[in-house]
Amino acid sequence: MLTNFTLHPQLRQDALAVGRFELSWLLMMNDSQYPWFILVPQRPEVSEIHQLGEGDRLQLLRESCALAEALSAIYRPDKLNVASIGNRVPQLHVHHVARYQTDRAWPAPVWGKFDPLPYDEADALAHIDRLRRQLVMWLVAEPAG
Amino acid sequence: MLTNFTLHPQLRQDALAVGRFELSWLLMMNDSQYPWFILVPQRPEVSEIHQLGEGDRLQLLRESCALAEALSAIYRPDKLNVASIGNRVPQLHVHHVARYQTDRAWPAPVWGKFDPLPYDEADALAHIDRLRRQLVMWLVAEPAG
Repeated sequence: MLTNFTLHPQLRQDALAVGRFELSWLLMMNDSQYPWFILVPQRPEVSEIHQLGEGDRLQLLRESCALAEALSAIYRPDKLNVASIGNRVPQLHVHHVARYQTDRAWPAPVWGKFDPLPYDEADALAHIDRLRRQLVMWLVAEPAG
Repeated sequence: MLTNFTLHPQLRQDALAVGRFELSWLLMMNDSQYPWFILVPQRPEVSEIHQLGEGDRLQLLRESCALAEALSAIYRPDKLNVASIGNRVPQLHVHHVARYQTDRAWPAPVWGKFDPLPYDEADALAHIDRLRRQLVMWLVAEPAG
């Protein structure tokens, strides 16, 4: 199933691996300005949600809602921003950003707004560890790297 | 089912009614700069996809993919941007924007980028009519207004 899938180099560069759902890689954007996570279905040459098969569409929905619930529980955001954009990185990926009325970009979307402010390593690991524990029933493994 | 649902006044002001799916209103943003459509599930006091019940989640996914396929067929975009943001309008609504590498905002997202450029009435009706015909098997009725 996964033979022909490789993570887009831009995502590999901008984000940190959190784990793997049944269908999607779960990444955290290395930008400490917002809790910002990304699902990447492990399907080659797909750039739109509607290009996924029926079963994959449903599984992506399940994973997206599980992630959204976990982020709501952990971060208590004022709003979640959930989006498949991909104008710069065509590989299908779905952003999940926890937004606050007090964050730097509010009420604008985060994409292309400010340069990322990378996490300290300890801080990144704390965010990742907390989300992994919240999603322990969902994550099948860590991505290979 | 629909008793307590009313469309948010900001959406009513910014968008034109195209029709109604089983779950969602289908609107067209009155901005001629991009083919930009919005699904609004007819559920009161819901602002996040994961707050919908299981059946509604699946129906929203079906309607979103049907709309995405229709927009792909009509507009042949370089990319679709599909997003639930809601920082300004908390009523759950899902944007579907057909994007081109030649459009004014590319590769930035469209939200908050440029002031809308309203359609001429005939032009708006042509876009709406074409999409209605493409989605004739899906739309149950026109919204009441």
